[in-house]
Amino acid sequence: MSILRKDPITNGWVIIAEERALRPQDLGGESPAFIDPAKCPFCPGNERLTPPEIRAVRDGGAPNAPGWRMRVVPNKFAALRVEGDLDRRGLGMYDEMSGIGAHEVVIESPEHRQRLWQFGDDQLTALARVCHERVCDLSRDIRFRYIQIFRNFGARAGASLEHPHTQIIALPIVPRWVKEELACAREHWMRTERCVFCDIVHQEQRDGERLVHDNEHFLAFEPFASKFPFETWIIPKRHEADFRRAGGDILPALADTLRRTLTALARALADPPYNLMLHSAPFSAHEAELIANTPNDYHWHIEIIPRLTVPGGFEWGTGFHINPTRPETAATFLRQALAEA
Amino acid sequence: MSILRKDPITNGWVIIAEERALRPQDLGGESPAFIDPAKCPFCPGNERLTPPEIRAVRDGGAPNAPGWRMRVVPNKFAALRVEGDLDRRGLGMYDEMSGIGAHEVVIESPEHRQRLWQFGDDQLTALARVCHERVCDLSRDIRFRYIQIFRNFGARAGASLEHPHTQIIALPIVPRWVKEELACAREHWMRTERCVFCDIVHQEQRDGERLVHDNEHFLAFEPFASKFPFETWIIPKRHEADFRRAGGDILPALADTLRRTLTALARALADPPYNLMLHSAPFSAHEAELIANTPNDYHWHIEIIPRLTVPGGFEWGTGFHINPTRPETAATFLRQALAEA
Repeated sequence: MSILRKDPITNGWVIIAEERALRPQDLGGESPAFIDPAKCPFCPGNERLTPPEIRAVRDGGAPNAPGWRMRVVPNKFAALRVEGDLDRRGLGMYDEMSGIGAHEVVIESPEHRQRLWQFGDDQLTALARVCHERVCDLSRDIRFRYIQIFRNFGARAGASLEHPHTQIIALPIVPRWVKEELACAREHWMRTERCVFCDIVHQEQRDGERLVHDNEHFLAFEPFASKFPFETWIIPKRHEADFRRAGGDILPALADTLRRTLTALARALADPPYNLMLHSAPFSAHEAELIANTPNDYHWHIEIIPRLTVPGGFEWGTGFHINPTRPETAATFLRQALAEA
Repeated sequence: MSILRKDPITNGWVIIAEERALRPQDLGGESPAFIDPAKCPFCPGNERLTPPEIRAVRDGGAPNAPGWRMRVVPNKFAALRVEGDLDRRGLGMYDEMSGIGAHEVVIESPEHRQRLWQFGDDQLTALARVCHERVCDLSRDIRFRYIQIFRNFGARAGASLEHPHTQIIALPIVPRWVKEELACAREHWMRTERCVFCDIVHQEQRDGERLVHDNEHFLAFEPFASKFPFETWIIPKRHEADFRRAGGDILPALADTLRRTLTALARALADPPYNLMLHSAPFSAHEAELIANTPNDYHWHIEIIPRLTVPGGFEWGTGFHINPTRPETAATFLRQALAEA
């Protein structure tokens, strides 16, 4: 059973998930080799290798049997477990609690080697809908305060399996960086009575030089203070703090924007490893006393960071990042890649 | 010339250093190959390949010629430059300033393949003294507010050269994570009238299970909420916020602790890639209005993170880390490695 521990120096939390690797020799070395598709737990025919499915999109077939286009299953090597109580306890000056949460995997396609940018719009829209449904469902558990949807592509981005998949982790704590962003957004709101993310949308549209793609509902752009080369954000133009309240009507536009953005990144950077993260407001009902966020304090969006550089001691020591590529330069390359696609 | 840009979502800053790599094809791919020692800019005989030395420890020989035991030179590919004005400017809602700062390299030994744990105590003490001197000297520049000393070992930890070296970056801004730690330490002080780091020293000594090494002046231990497997901290027992005020009398004990700690890590984990960071209070004289830190709000220390796992979208999205090794387990392995050394 994993445990959650609080760092008294930053008030941030970590998950200690020791079942995952006990001995020094299990750590490090080369990134895990990508396995033979015949043994892939996410390939059709191998459904018995995952826990039973929570949800599936199927053309036919029985649950946990082939015939699916998308499956949601609990992560077999979950960082957090659904069962049990939070069991908060103090250990001298330290704080610890049980590793309660949810850790699910969305197996996005039956095809082992398919890239997300090769998905049809139907499949991408289905993925957006399935993630949306899972977040809505998981947020009904009153123990959970934040849900992180993320996708690791490539061993250098932390992926341990090649088969296309997205992960969803529900946490009993609002993460430190989410709190920090909420505090900044709130400060901006108090000063201006405007959402800082909406302000960014307007300035990016006006400036234009960091834009990658602009459609009716979404903007894809390189952020002004990109921490990583070719860091790309996708943000809805309509203000909404919480992804759960993003209307189903805009999910096809999200799928289209995501496909174009990932196509541009794949073409400009030769299919780079990347992390994709969906940021959304924590559930205000549970967090009312702690952070008292209002619908104006956040604005859901997606951040994509290609893993082209290795953060070192400077970055890990300070949180300051050295980015060797101007976002304006990156945007030029991405617009060009998109035009040629 | 690099530029500093502020992220309006976190109020953190980034360094955009475009001269380092302009085109997409310059990024990513494999980690830079470690070069032939004959061409190494840090090897004796190649002194012309670095900018002129700022400081050296020599047995003989002229400046910028062989005969040295340690050299400090400006980084040839500096992320920040010493010359110029800060030139703060607003660009609509965004903030930018010139990339002013200092970026120095301490070439720690004439021997290309020597590991830090193989250094004699004399050489390690000299390294501690040289770093201490450089920090004291750089902090006299009133433009600088924080100095980060760090060491990247191994390509997977972000090192681009194999030759043993430490880097020093002086910044015109107090980094976001340093501010966060100061705020937490201050909150603890306000509540308890005790330094949170001193409290950690006492609890770690009492608990014992996370200790790696304990001598008269320093404690080496695995932090309770380690973000990474085998994360190790070295902390002085005597309270001091600012590394500049660490008495020269304790530097030999620091060298000894560092050698033992790195030896344990090298033996337990087969010479792993790692980042080493020295954390110290910002210069309070300059920062008085901004953070008003007192001598009780911080406690200088060293953090070492072996790079055995790859942070993915969950970590980059939340600041929450999943650590597969309990710090108590790691400490047991390290104490054993030290006993066998």
